[in-house]
Amino acid sequence: MQTELSNTLGVEHAVFGFTPFPAVAAAITRAGGFGVLGAVRYNAPDELARDLDWMQEHTEGLPYGLDVVMPAKKVEGVTEADVEAMIPESHRQFVADLLAKYEVPQLAEGEATGWRITGWMEQVARSQLDVAFDYPIKLLASALGAPPPDVIQRAHNHDILVAALAGSPRHALHHKAAGIDIVVAQGYEAGGHTGEIATMVLTPEVVAAVDPLPVLAAGGIGTGAQIAAGLALGAQGVWLGSIWLTTEEAELHSRRLTAKLLAAGPGDTVRSRALTGKPARQLRTAWTDAWDDPSGLGPLPMPLQGLLVAEANSRIQRYETEPLLGTPVGQIVGRMNRERSVQAVFDDLIRGFERAIDRIDRIAGRSQQ
Amino acid sequence: MQTELSNTLGVEHAVFGFTPFPAVAAAITRAGGFGVLGAVRYNAPDELARDLDWMQEHTEGLPYGLDVVMPAKKVEGVTEADVEAMIPESHRQFVADLLAKYEVPQLAEGEATGWRITGWMEQVARSQLDVAFDYPIKLLASALGAPPPDVIQRAHNHDILVAALAGSPRHALHHKAAGIDIVVAQGYEAGGHTGEIATMVLTPEVVAAVDPLPVLAAGGIGTGAQIAAGLALGAQGVWLGSIWLTTEEAELHSRRLTAKLLAAGPGDTVRSRALTGKPARQLRTAWTDAWDDPSGLGPLPMPLQGLLVAEANSRIQRYETEPLLGTPVGQIVGRMNRERSVQAVFDDLIRGFERAIDRIDRIAGRSQQ
Repeated sequence: MQTELSNTLGVEHAVFGFTPFPAVAAAITRAGGFGVLGAVRYNAPDELARDLDWMQEHTEGLPYGLDVVMPAKKVEGVTEADVEAMIPESHRQFVADLLAKYEVPQLAEGEATGWRITGWMEQVARSQLDVAFDYPIKLLASALGAPPPDVIQRAHNHDILVAALAGSPRHALHHKAAGIDIVVAQGYEAGGHTGEIATMVLTPEVVAAVDPLPVLAAGGIGTGAQIAAGLALGAQGVWLGSIWLTTEEAELHSRRLTAKLLAAGPGDTVRSRALTGKPARQLRTAWTDAWDDPSGLGPLPMPLQGLLVAEANSRIQRYETEPLLGTPVGQIVGRMNRERSVQAVFDDLIRGFERAIDRIDRIAGRSQQ
Repeated sequence: MQTELSNTLGVEHAVFGFTPFPAVAAAITRAGGFGVLGAVRYNAPDELARDLDWMQEHTEGLPYGLDVVMPAKKVEGVTEADVEAMIPESHRQFVADLLAKYEVPQLAEGEATGWRITGWMEQVARSQLDVAFDYPIKLLASALGAPPPDVIQRAHNHDILVAALAGSPRHALHHKAAGIDIVVAQGYEAGGHTGEIATMVLTPEVVAAVDPLPVLAAGGIGTGAQIAAGLALGAQGVWLGSIWLTTEEAELHSRRLTAKLLAAGPGDTVRSRALTGKPARQLRTAWTDAWDDPSGLGPLPMPLQGLLVAEANSRIQRYETEPLLGTPVGQIVGRMNRERSVQAVFDDLIRGFERAIDRIDRIAGRSQQ
C-alpha cells in the first residue's frame, strides 16, 4: 500500500498508528506501518527520553513519529495554580458528589494523579521537543492545531515532517498557512477531540482545500475495507488510533476497561466535553452522562475541565469504578471484539484491504476473474 | 458499476437516487442509475398517480422505485385533529413569536400549507400504495423502519423489492426480521432523519449484521470518490439524496434556497429535531437555532412537531424569508457549488468513480501503468 507520502517516509504501508504506548507504536512500525507515539502522558522529559530510547531499540531502524499537544497560541506566564484558581467551587462539589455517589475511594498518599494538565502546557511540550529532536523521528504530529513557527522550523531543520490534525477545511487551511507538511483530517466518528464533519465528507473537503499537501484520513478506520475507503476519498494514508487500545501490547492497566471496550457497540460512544472541556469522543459512561445532563452544571471550558477532573479520573481508573470507567475511543469500538497482538491486527488490516480492492475491482469491471 | 443487486434490478450502475421530484427521479433512471421517487409530499392519491404516469412516460422502460413513509407500528383511529389537540399553547406561541420576529407574512386565503403531517400517516401511505402497485415499480423503500408485514407481502407478490432505512445495526436487524430485502444504511452525515453513527462505521456494521442481505450506503455520498468509498465498505450500491437538490430539474421553487445550498459549506448543516420532532440533518438557520437553543422551549416529539411547524414552514418557503429558509440536506452540501443537469451530475459521478478506482489500484500496486 504505497503512496507518495509513504514513499517519502520510507514506510511499507501508508497506515499510521497513533498510540500512547511505546510497545504498540514500535510494533506498528515493525509490522510495516508508521507508529506515532503520543507524548501527552509524559510529565518529565526524562520519561520521554527513556521511552524513545526503548523505541530506538525496538524499531529495527524503521521510521516512527511523535505526537505532541502544543497549541500555536501562547499563554504567557500562566501556571497550573493560576488555572486551578479559576475553577468554581460548585464544580469541585459536583465532582466530589459524583465520586461519593459511586463510592470511589481516595488515592493513597503519594499515588500519582496520572493524566495531568501539564502535558498540555506549552513549556512542557517544548521540553519534550528538546528531547525528541535528539532522536531520529521522521514525523512530528500536533493534536491541537499547528505548532508555533519556530517549532515547525526546528523540525524541518531536522528533516522531520510536521502533521496537524484538522476537523474542518477551515482549520486545515490555517495549518497549511502555518507551514505544516501533512494534514490529518479527523472526522466526527474518531476517538478523542473531533469536530462535526464525518470522515466520508471531511477527507475530500480537506484534500481539495490543502492541495497539493498530503492528507491522512482519520476517524472510523479500523478495518482494511475502511482503509480502502479512506484512500478512495483521496487520502495519501490513514491514521488509526482506537483499534490499538485492545491489542495485547496496550498498557491500559485495567481488565475492566478492556472488557468494556471489547463489549461496546458502535453506538456506545459519545462526543462529550466531560474530559477536557472540548468535545472529545469517548465511551459513554455514567460520568459522561452526568456532565452532559442538561439539568446539571455542565463541563468547564478547556483547560479548566481537564484540571478539574484529573484527580477524579485517576481515582476512577485506579479503582476501576465500573459505571464511571471510560476512555477516548471512536465509533469503530463496535468492531473491537478480540484482544490480539498488534501484528495480528495489522495483518488483518492488510488482508482486508486487499479483499476490498478485489471486490471493488470486480464491481468496476476490472477483475481478471 | 455492477453488483449482484444492480444486476437483479436491471440497472446499469449501482447508484440509487432519492428525490421528491419526478423530473429528477426519471432523469436519474435515464442516466443509468435507479431513480427513487419520494411520496411523502403527496396528500391525494390522484396526485401520485399523475406523477407515476409521467414517470412511466419518461423512463424509457428502465427501472425506478418509490419511497413511502410508513411506520410499522400502527396507531389506530388517531386523526390529525387528535394530534393537533396535543400541542401545548406555549409552543404555538413560540412559533407565532418567531414568525413575527422575522416578519413572515400570512398565507393568502386558500393557499395550501404544502408539507403536511398527512403524508406521514398510515392511511395516507396505504392509499399511496394502492396507487403504486398499479405501476411497474421495482423497489419500495420505507424511510421510517420496515413497512407492516402485509405491505411487504403485497410488494413481493408484485415482484417488488422492499428496502428500509436504518441508522444502526440494531434497526437493520429489526428490518431484516420483518422480511425486507435491502437495507439502506444511513449515516450521521446524511440529510434528513439520521442517527449518530457515521457512514464509514455504519456501513460495514450493517453489512455484517444483515448478511447476506444487500446493503446500500447512504450519507456523505455526492462524488465518485465517495461512491468508491461506500462500495469499498461492503455496500452493494449507494443511495444519494442531497446531491440532486441543486440540479436544474429540481423543483425547489425558491432561488434563495438554491443560492443558500450552493453557498453552504460542510459545517453549515445541523442535526435538529426542529422539523419533525426526530433528529434530521438540515441547513442550519435562525429557525433551527431557535428550536435548538437550550434556553428555549425545544421541539415537541414526532408527530407533534411536524404538525406544529407545517404552516410556518409553508410561509417561510412561500415568502423565502432568508434567515429562516432551510431544507433537509447532508454534509455534502459543501460540494454542491454549481447548478447542473442530472445527466451532468451523473456523468461526473461515474467519471469520478473510475478515477478513484484508478488511484486506489495504483496505491494497491495493481495498475498496469
